[in-house]
Amino acid sequence: MRAICLLSGGMDSSTLAYLAKSEGYEIIALHFNYGQRTEQRERNASRTIASLLGVAEFIEVDIGFLTRFGGSSLIDPSIPVEEFDVSRTGLPNTYVPFRNGNLLSIATSCAEVRQADAIFIGVQSQDYSGYPDCRPRFIAAFQQAIDLGTRDETKIRLITPFLHLTKSDILRTGLRLGVPYEHTWSCYQNNEQACGRCGACHFRKAAFAGIGRRDPIRYSPE
Amino acid sequence: MRAICLLSGGMDSSTLAYLAKSEGYEIIALHFNYGQRTEQRERNASRTIASLLGVAEFIEVDIGFLTRFGGSSLIDPSIPVEEFDVSRTGLPNTYVPFRNGNLLSIATSCAEVRQADAIFIGVQSQDYSGYPDCRPRFIAAFQQAIDLGTRDETKIRLITPFLHLTKSDILRTGLRLGVPYEHTWSCYQNNEQACGRCGACHFRKAAFAGIGRRDPIRYSPE
Repeated sequence: MRAICLLSGGMDSSTLAYLAKSEGYEIIALHFNYGQRTEQRERNASRTIASLLGVAEFIEVDIGFLTRFGGSSLIDPSIPVEEFDVSRTGLPNTYVPFRNGNLLSIATSCAEVRQADAIFIGVQSQDYSGYPDCRPRFIAAFQQAIDLGTRDETKIRLITPFLHLTKSDILRTGLRLGVPYEHTWSCYQNNEQACGRCGACHFRKAAFAGIGRRDPIRYSPE
Repeated sequence: MRAICLLSGGMDSSTLAYLAKSEGYEIIALHFNYGQRTEQRERNASRTIASLLGVAEFIEVDIGFLTRFGGSSLIDPSIPVEEFDVSRTGLPNTYVPFRNGNLLSIATSCAEVRQADAIFIGVQSQDYSGYPDCRPRFIAAFQQAIDLGTRDETKIRLITPFLHLTKSDILRTGLRLGVPYEHTWSCYQNNEQACGRCGACHFRKAAFAGIGRRDPIRYSPE
């Protein structure tokens, strides 16, 4: 069995790759650079995780064209990354429109050529920021698009083991599988020390706190 | 009204852009370079058409990563482009897996940021080579993915006016709209004179022959 794993180098996708491997898949890791603020750090994290896990192939894909459209603080330096705010309604400004549609399309092209059986993506509908392209019904719709938009003999299953898990559940899974979280990167804002205040840091810290474990990465002093 | 138009610079997509403009849309033309054999010629054709039509914005997007996956004669120089053969069964080797999934995902990201009302794509299910990502049911599935994977307030309509037309029908439409076909490019194989023998040339020549008009571009001598 062969699987394409979307690997950003963050907590969820690194756990995902370890999980897919533990289920017997040969892993092709797909990493995306899209001009995000922490591009360099995420690239290093994903390379390290892929190498420690022992993937069959590591492919970096440049989708920097997303920065040309803009519209998100992750890829437009003129928009500050907003800090986590429990009272906010609507989407955070870190939302990159239809990013997962893009990632899954590229993964599908790769999967069809490489004859992979599955695409693993670490989307999560709980503990999440309400990104529309992380919702279960989006995933179901995209599975349909894959089924109808590839060769009839191609069968690619979109696998989302974390869809209904909390971030703490994911962490428990990863600790059981030996994921080296010290090499992962989640912060949206910084490349050196994690900011501790953006949405990604907020949820990561809450996940470690939720199971009473210390996060091995370093955060900026408050 | 604003529309994203996928503009390769070929006969169909050029007609499509003229049609969208005639319906009152402000046009954002999206052109893709993906390492195809005729990249340079298609880029020039699409720029010329966009400029003659008077688009609001012309965006070139590089999706050269598709060449890294390979698997198609359009993007892998080691696989010869097959000539049109009426007796062939199955997909021609010019099929680029899930290419339209990629193009539509990028168009959706662009449309959501630019607040466009529609995406025009010149897919056609008749006279076509059986590419799965040109089928009406793929288009319907992708519309679902767009609806569920973008902001709830975002409404982007996927418009495919040529889905059930023949290539001759498209040509009739374009001649009525004044599309300058001498500046379009369809050949999969050559950048200078169209080969006349690949699938794209075959269908183009048949379309002009079907309505008794001379194709204004030059073909290689037989």
